[in-house]
Amino acid sequence: MPRPASDLRELVEGYLAELAFAPDLGSLEQPMRHALGGKRVRPVLCLATGDALGARAEDLLPAAAAVELVHSFSLVHDDLPALDDDRERRGAPSVWAEYGEAPAILAGDALLVEAMRLALTYPSGAVARELVDATLAMIGGQQLDLEGSAQLDHLHALKTGALFRASVMCALLAADVPVDEHPPWRMFAADVGLLFQIVDDLLDGDGYAASVGEDGARRLADETAARSRERLEVLHADTEVLEEIVNGLAVRTS
Amino acid sequence: MPRPASDLRELVEGYLAELAFAPDLGSLEQPMRHALGGKRVRPVLCLATGDALGARAEDLLPAAAAVELVHSFSLVHDDLPALDDDRERRGAPSVWAEYGEAPAILAGDALLVEAMRLALTYPSGAVARELVDATLAMIGGQQLDLEGSAQLDHLHALKTGALFRASVMCALLAADVPVDEHPPWRMFAADVGLLFQIVDDLLDGDGYAASVGEDGARRLADETAARSRERLEVLHADTEVLEEIVNGLAVRTS
Repeated sequence: MPRPASDLRELVEGYLAELAFAPDLGSLEQPMRHALGGKRVRPVLCLATGDALGARAEDLLPAAAAVELVHSFSLVHDDLPALDDDRERRGAPSVWAEYGEAPAILAGDALLVEAMRLALTYPSGAVARELVDATLAMIGGQQLDLEGSAQLDHLHALKTGALFRASVMCALLAADVPVDEHPPWRMFAADVGLLFQIVDDLLDGDGYAASVGEDGARRLADETAARSRERLEVLHADTEVLEEIVNGLAVRTS
Repeated sequence: MPRPASDLRELVEGYLAELAFAPDLGSLEQPMRHALGGKRVRPVLCLATGDALGARAEDLLPAAAAVELVHSFSLVHDDLPALDDDRERRGAPSVWAEYGEAPAILAGDALLVEAMRLALTYPSGAVARELVDATLAMIGGQQLDLEGSAQLDHLHALKTGALFRASVMCALLAADVPVDEHPPWRMFAADVGLLFQIVDDLLDGDGYAASVGEDGARRLADETAARSRERLEVLHADTEVLEEIVNGLAVRTS
């Protein structure tokens, strides 16, 4: 019987709160912890995937936390004045606005490397490699975004889709699911990432909401949520909580 | 018979020139390649260590290149206006001065992740873990440096020593040298890193040159070079080229 998403979120919060950073990082710990606020969508998706496969959530926590640290790294750097110049994040000052630009650059770097350290706690390098590939896609996506000429689907696949895929795939890899069972999970992950992004654009009034209109984006979100649920039906796993997550992402208001 | 350092440097140059980055990185390839200029001190030290142990240099090239990419990442971020604000690096514009701050931040991130990708080509995660530990030390060292209150030895151990240690240790790990043979190599690596830093300070007129004077720093460099050579004598390896490297570092003028 898989645990509800709220229980998984508590597990993640507890793990992140206890997570020790390298002592060498010294005073960077404060901006790093400041950066680690958030809704935990990705790590909960990672744990729920593992739970659906019968893996122990505790064994997946380093992978789930690694995904969240990569997400946080990307926000810290993207918020910088030279990039998106965002002074606010989640209703609080962004890391650079609170601690200064230099600590924000270094704290972002450190979050990325700490993520790799967590991913490297698994005997196989597969979790770390999945995270590396997703991170390279995100960085390339941010550069494309700054250039301003990218096609929306491609941009979102890089900036959002890759890390959602990694959230699901890291759970499969950490749980040693054979490679030939990966493809349907990949397709599910791609749709969940797309769903998250469409609803994000609806909430922000940009991206898909700007390009196909609010009604069009709402319809697209509903279709994507329906397709995500269909993807779940063919998986050999207890997908009840994953379905709960899909439904939650489709109707979220923040 | 180990190959001379000049041959090893050519091997590194060829490998880096051919190195393919993730296609997703798109136009970041130019600032990343711009960042990859340099003397190749660390990767040559890595290859020479491997050569001294009888490992094939070709097998060590990914580790050597990974070390160089981490070094380049750190320079790209350290040069940024918010950190050291250096417009020049190696007689050319620094990455941010040439390409802008946003591409420099992202190119630095990408170099770091590409380094991890190279380190993860080894079956064991040990090379990647060594690199992660060194990178965390470097980031923490840069933060300490910005705070301006650190003790010089400690600062240099973090900012320079850690990656010199990784240059040597990655070769040992890639060549599967048993752990009980590591300690004397670690001590050698620590001294080579210190030697490099003292001579760097002599050339720049800061750090050790400022704290103990030019003559004092010169004496310290000679003592450290002598101790490095002594460390080599007790190693079960063909250390001729490593000695050549130590001698070269002691008298370098650029």
